[in-house]
Amino acid sequence: MTQMEFAKKSKITPEMEYVAKSEGIDVKKLMELLKNGEVVIPANKIHLSKNLKKLVGIGKNLKTKVNVNLGTSYDFVDIEEEKEKLKIAIKYGADTVMDLSTGGDLRKIRKELMEICEIPIGSVPVYEAEFRAAKEKGSIFDLEPDDFIKAIEIHAKDGIDFMTIHAGITLEGIRFMKNQGRTTWIVSRGGGLLAAWMLFHNRENPLLEKFDDILDICRTYDITISLGDALRPGSIADSFDRPQVHELLILGELVDRCRKANVQVMVEGPGHVPLNEIQAQIILQKKITRNAPFYVLGMLPTDIAAGWDHIAGAIGGALAGWFGADMLCYLTPAEHLGLPNVEHVKEGLIAFKIAAHIADIAKGIKSAYEWDLAMSRARYSLDWENQIKLSIDPQKAKQIREERTTKTVACSMCGPFCPMNLIEKFVEDAKRAREEVKIILEKSLKEV
Amino acid sequence: MTQMEFAKKSKITPEMEYVAKSEGIDVKKLMELLKNGEVVIPANKIHLSKNLKKLVGIGKNLKTKVNVNLGTSYDFVDIEEEKEKLKIAIKYGADTVMDLSTGGDLRKIRKELMEICEIPIGSVPVYEAEFRAAKEKGSIFDLEPDDFIKAIEIHAKDGIDFMTIHAGITLEGIRFMKNQGRTTWIVSRGGGLLAAWMLFHNRENPLLEKFDDILDICRTYDITISLGDALRPGSIADSFDRPQVHELLILGELVDRCRKANVQVMVEGPGHVPLNEIQAQIILQKKITRNAPFYVLGMLPTDIAAGWDHIAGAIGGALAGWFGADMLCYLTPAEHLGLPNVEHVKEGLIAFKIAAHIADIAKGIKSAYEWDLAMSRARYSLDWENQIKLSIDPQKAKQIREERTTKTVACSMCGPFCPMNLIEKFVEDAKRAREEVKIILEKSLKEV
Repeated sequence: MTQMEFAKKSKITPEMEYVAKSEGIDVKKLMELLKNGEVVIPANKIHLSKNLKKLVGIGKNLKTKVNVNLGTSYDFVDIEEEKEKLKIAIKYGADTVMDLSTGGDLRKIRKELMEICEIPIGSVPVYEAEFRAAKEKGSIFDLEPDDFIKAIEIHAKDGIDFMTIHAGITLEGIRFMKNQGRTTWIVSRGGGLLAAWMLFHNRENPLLEKFDDILDICRTYDITISLGDALRPGSIADSFDRPQVHELLILGELVDRCRKANVQVMVEGPGHVPLNEIQAQIILQKKITRNAPFYVLGMLPTDIAAGWDHIAGAIGGALAGWFGADMLCYLTPAEHLGLPNVEHVKEGLIAFKIAAHIADIAKGIKSAYEWDLAMSRARYSLDWENQIKLSIDPQKAKQIREERTTKTVACSMCGPFCPMNLIEKFVEDAKRAREEVKIILEKSLKEV
Repeated sequence: MTQMEFAKKSKITPEMEYVAKSEGIDVKKLMELLKNGEVVIPANKIHLSKNLKKLVGIGKNLKTKVNVNLGTSYDFVDIEEEKEKLKIAIKYGADTVMDLSTGGDLRKIRKELMEICEIPIGSVPVYEAEFRAAKEKGSIFDLEPDDFIKAIEIHAKDGIDFMTIHAGITLEGIRFMKNQGRTTWIVSRGGGLLAAWMLFHNRENPLLEKFDDILDICRTYDITISLGDALRPGSIADSFDRPQVHELLILGELVDRCRKANVQVMVEGPGHVPLNEIQAQIILQKKITRNAPFYVLGMLPTDIAAGWDHIAGAIGGALAGWFGADMLCYLTPAEHLGLPNVEHVKEGLIAFKIAAHIADIAKGIKSAYEWDLAMSRARYSLDWENQIKLSIDPQKAKQIREERTTKTVACSMCGPFCPMNLIEKFVEDAKRAREEVKIILEKSLKEV
């Protein structure tokens, strides 16, 4: 049975208990959300039986989650580097990762990563289907619909917890795109090759045609389907155009089918969206999909931040999270330029952890607010040990503080003129406070 | 005459023409905005007569501006480092800078910086007043109200274009703070020492008492007053509390007085504000001050991002800019930890340039949208030269692309499987497209 099926039968599972505890919400409430499909817990039974330790819930009333993409490419096939990325991702608090490898022995890489992956892991099986077809049949255009199903089955058996399934792109969607006159057409790697196949054969999307088979596999292993958005806008000019919205309509119908089949499902979203359209994107997605958990890429509110896309993406991500996106896929400084290295992964993840936390405060998540309050109290009392400890990245905070050191009890920005907890003393007893500050403050003022 | 006075007399100045041209708006419209005080052009006549080359307008209908703080501190007095920061700030597109030096010979530092400062520069004269009093009179508590005026006069003569004047903190505001039970009381360095003075003497704010004298000086040199917010929230818990709002009410009255005296004025704002309160902060400020240009610090929507506060601040800044903040004061990775070094300044500035640009797109600034469109077109046609050129930081984009190089015409993320401009070919003629992709795409697929 899937978590959704258990929930429908009002049976509380250990996975629900784990998530309820880590979110600080009532397990019965969580069960209701799972039942309605407003929350998913991606946990393949195979992975769960092996080393999936840190479960996450994604969806309504829960903390905003962050996903880290990693994996080899045609140009960089270095499995040790990818393992390093995974370790860094886990260390810095990624909620989930996706193995998007497209170079080397894909299955071997996946298995090696999964051996050290204690958090939910996702994949895009369509890549592997295409590469296998090219190798075994000589061409991706010789792919048969069943080949996609075979790839999904392999990933299922390997223990993948959630899979991107681009079942929403149809010939009608492509027609909308053609008539629209898009700026960047298709920017989804899996979706692009799929569309090429559809256009070459003038055939409907095989993932859509075989969707019942996919549901069977996902139900068996309790894999969460992550409905991919092959027609997501790849430039802000394309945000909310007709092909994007048409695909969303199909995804909405597929959400209904997943839920009916007791298969957990979330929906992927953009991508390049100007800041002033982010809220509308989320409202529309939530309505069309009847509140399916929303997993967005960024969102990225400008096209020009190459080299710093993690920052642009964190801006869009914070807003998206506040308005109801449930999981943010991170971006790294290498986005639009190349495959990220380990340092890029770390920088991208931290930027998005900050974005998710900012969203959580805005959403009213109590523990997020309390973290900030504890930090501000440490700051007010010049308690540097706790300030470092409570920072999003204690190592970096410590390093900057040590590099830019101070002779005073404050920091090297204000030094003896630090206003922290100065005024409270003056409000209490100004004469006494003046005597107190004479020693440090006034002496320093004279030195300047 | 000040720019405002010229505008009131319907006289177009060269400064108005410069700004109108750089903003791409009609100069008569700009004049109207200046007349109403909805836009300011900070340009001290002294600086203008020397080396102020790059003028900026700040306010309604204009691009969102970014300010860079720099200057020495008690712990770091290295004038060469500060000059480097200024050069980096100008190179990476800071609209204005502020010299907040509090270490070394403040006037000498200011003069050396101004020699190479071709953009508007601001300062906080209250620091210098306090340090002078400590040195010359033995204590900041021996400061007389006239000492503040003297410091302002010195800065005016040195050519400072805009000055932070903390005239809005009153004994009544401090009473509100005391009763409120704030988390971080006062976090403004200038405001903190001022409040200590007021409490010690139980006297009203000397900057408020002497405000007419300040207006006289600022009118003479056409200095833009930047009304400081000494009681800004220093933690998200303090956002929108009574002392903050009380100070804003006083600032609103002072805006009226400035405009009546033909002195250009903008208003400073927070600071630590949760994401969901940013819009309300801006609506309130704009109403209370009758649409004075709003110059915010961040805003910073979390307290816990020490080491990465430039990213947290860029998130708040983008939102603030979209909702109507006219200038964003940047934050660096060293915020809350120490005085930034040159690299921190660069990182902070780029983060905020991205935030301002994202805000400009959302605000409907045409040139901002067109920049993105040009980038996406270059991206779609795999024109790497223009992609690098159109990046916010071409040097960084180039460096990442070279470090994570590819054997293909795309990038090392997708390599031969890059979906860019693949589908348009298939839509046009799928059979021919297949022949085309055989050479690269299919060959590569087999290699994986």
